[in-house]
Formats: sequence, C-alpha cells, structure tokens
Amino acid sequence: MERRKGELNWFIPDGFIPPNSTGNLISHEAICVLNCNEEEVFLEITIYFEDRPPLKSIPFEVKGKRTKHIKTSSLQKDGEKIPIDVPYAIEIESDLPIIVQYSRLDTTQRELALMSTMAYSIK
Amino acid sequence: MERRKGELNWFIPDGFIPPNSTGNLISHEAICVLNCNEEEVFLEITIYFEDRPPLKSIPFEVKGKRTKHIKTSSLQKDGEKIPIDVPYAIEIESDLPIIVQYSRLDTTQRELALMSTMAYSIK
Amino acid sequence: MERRKGELNWFIPDGFIPPNSTGNLISHEAICVLNCNEEEVFLEITIYFEDRPPLKSIPFEVKGKRTKHIKTSSLQKDGEKIPIDVPYAIEIESDLPIIVQYSRLDTTQRELALMSTMAYSIK
Amino acid sequence: MERRKGELNWFIPDGFIPPNSTGNLISHEAICVLNCNEEEVFLEITIYFEDRPPLKSIPFEVKGKRTKHIKTSSLQKDGEKIPIDVPYAIEIESDLPIIVQYSRLDTTQRELALMSTMAYSIK
Repeated sequence: MERRKGELNWFIPDGFIPPNSTGNLISHEAICVLNCNEEEVFLEITIYFEDRPPLKSIPFEVKGKRTKHIKTSSLQKDGEKIPIDVPYAIEIESDLPIIVQYSRLDTTQRELALMSTMAYSIK
Repeated sequence: MERRKGELNWFIPDGFIPPNSTGNLISHEAICVLNCNEEEVFLEITIYFEDRPPLKSIPFEVKGKRTKHIKTSSLQKDGEKIPIDVPYAIEIESDLPIIVQYSRLDTTQRELALMSTMAYSIK
Repeated sequence: MERRKGELNWFIPDGFIPPNSTGNLISHEAICVLNCNEEEVFLEITIYFEDRPPLKSIPFEVKGKRTKHIKTSSLQKDGEKIPIDVPYAIEIESDLPIIVQYSRLDTTQRELALMSTMAYSIK
Repeated sequence: MERRKGELNWFIPDGFIPPNSTGNLISHEAICVLNCNEEEVFLEITIYFEDRPPLKSIPFEVKGKRTKHIKTSSLQKDGEKIPIDVPYAIEIESDLPIIVQYSRLDTTQRELALMSTMAYSIK
C-alpha cells in the first residue's frame, strides 16, 4: 500500500505581502504545494485577518504528480484579493493529502531577503 | 466534529530583539498567532533568559477567527519589557488550540534580513 | 535498542535554483542529509514540476555516520539535470532512516539571502 | 502532572560556519536550547562530517529554567573545534527534555543574511 503523502489541513500564521520592491525581483510570497497523488487536488484557502472576518474558501487546483508555487497576490474570490502591507494568516484545506511550504522574498530594502518554513499540518 | 486546530503550548528558543536598524524598516520580531476557534483565546507568554529567572505569564488575547502578529517589543508585565540585544527564549500557553509561527526582521546592517520558523508545539 | 534516527521519506515543496549570482558566492540550494546509521544509505530523489511529469528516482548515496550537503544543481540522471529558474519540488526516499534539511543561498541581488527549513517527513 | 517540555534527541543536518564577515556583525551559528526543567541538563553534542568520522560527545550544560544560545564556534573537546568553511551536521543528546532551534547569521557578503529552523527531534 502507498504511504499517505502529506495531510489535508495546513496553516501559515505569518502572511504578509510586502508593498515595495527594489531591483528586478518583485517582493512576493509563495504557498508551495506538492501533490504526490495521481489525481488532481482541490484546495480551499481561507485568509484570516487581525481586525475583520476571514475571507473564506478561495478555490485552487493542483494537478496530480505536480507542484504549484502559488503567489498569494494572485489569489482571489469574487474579485476580492489579499491586501498588501497587512498582517494576515493562511489556512489550506485539501480533499487529498498534500505537502505545503511557505516562502517570502522581500526586496523592500536593497537588495534581497528570504524566509521559508514548512507550513503546520494537523492529522 | 471539528478537527482540533493547533496546540496549547508552543516554544521558540531563539528570541532576540536587534538593537539597531537602518533604512525605513525597524528591526523587530513577531510571534504570529492564528486562532481558528470561534472564541477568544487567552495567552500566557513566559520569557526565559540565560542568566536570570524567567519573566512569567505575560497576558495576551487574540479574538476568535483572527490572527495577531505580536511584536515582542510591545509585550510587558508590570512595566517590565523584554530587553533588547539579549538572547532569550519564549513559551506560549493558550487556553484553546492555536498555531504559532515566529519571524524576525533585521535591518542592523544594510539592508534587510529575514528568518522564520514554525514554533515547536507539544501535544 | 538504538532509537530510530529519522525517517525514510522526505519532501521539500519549494525548490528553485536561482539563475543569477553576484559577488563571490554562487547562488545554490542544498539538500542536507544526515545518516546516523553505521551503514551507507541509498537515496532515490524525485523531482516534481509544475507543467510536466516528474523526473524519477535520481540515485544518491551517503556513507554511514556521515552528512552530505547535496547541491541540487549537481543531481542528474541519464544526463538530465534540474533546470534553473523553474519552480519545482523534491521527494527523497531512503532505504534507512535519515534526517533532511533544505537551505537556499541566493545572491541574485546584492548581496546575500539565506533560507532554511527542515524537510517534511512522513512516518 | 507537568507536560513533558521537549525531547531528548535533536538533529541539525545543515551546519556551516561561514569563514568571512563584513561590517560589525560576525558571521556565526547558534544552537538555541531552552531548558524548561527545574534541573540543569547535561548535553552531549556530536558533529558529523562529510569525509571523516564524527567528533563525538562534546559536553555542554544548561541550567534549569534558562535558555542558552550556544555559538558553534565556541564548542570544543580535547582542544578540537568545529572547522570553519566545512559542511557538517549536529546531533544533540540531553538527559532531560529540551527544545532546540538552529539559526545562522551570515555577513560574508554585504550586509546580512539570516536563516533559522526548529531542529528535528525524535520521540
């Protein structure tokens, strides 16, 4: 039997889209999803804020045996996007097991800063 | 039944508030808390030092279905704050499950450095 | 009895080989493997892409009681290497327990950025 | 009953002491240990290399209810230290539960880069 590769529910408390960039690299965050299943996975991404109700269940799909590095600035639901320059948090729910890593590239001040961590999963 | 989203007890061994900044970004650390519960959570934050007894049980609250990116320099109890330029460690206790990530932004030397990691939780 | 030191299956969703470098340090990624066993371990490394089937089972060996910091740009199978400047993901399978950490050094824009995280393991 | 705060055995596959520094900040790594026990803990730190047998059981102590951010360049056993500019890995064994985070500050190329991750623990 195949091992179950990943979990269904992932969390990233430190979300932040830097408002500025310098040089040729644009500041951004990526939710990096690995789908080791044969089947496509269907994600629902919920965004939590400090001072207002969550933006719920943004849909996203990742094909089987593929990875997708999702830029958070590209996510939207009914035209609503994640605001820049605002602290927020991310929850990802998937219909099949996945693995999630979060990275941020910040070029606000010359020249380049990186951070990365595995997201937190619950079983 | 809802899955239990997070844990009650989290640890961050590498705490440090950089004493200096350059540019427009101020060096700081953030304890990023995600509260997926409907109810507000009550936190107690304990600070461990290298050479003196802990500063115990600094209180903090995070509303239900919200995140809070807590700047460590803002924490205080009876007027006592975390000193800058000193190695320390952080323990967070919560009355309901939460998820915790720790990040540091350092602009001590031009221009910008970032680091981040999920905090360590015990079940 | 010895404790089992590590796991057999590890994942790194955020792989990326930066195309450019500045200064004397060359941009690169490292898959850092620690083998605490007495015996040599045999790894199979699979690379997942966003838009094409995986590059499967690149072989690699790490001797007993040794570490190896594997530069991803050095991996190849039948002459095929991991392309630069492309988002990808990594799976590592081992015949004995190992521990895996992933780090990236990026000097694309002056001068230096680092990120690191433990890889994600399944039991 | 008190919860058990941490584990007895921790691993950091990506160790590296940068040989150079710029500015006022010296490049270094830190093994950040948090000891939540009342009692002092006794550590044994083993260093694994790519091309020679491990440097075994460097002793270190951390007092009860204290943290210690151990600079790897300060570790030594019988006069032997961890060489700079060499890939290595770290294992930490403790006689009581602890929590371990690893961070590196690199100022090799102007000006500053940081990385950090929780160490990997086994139960």
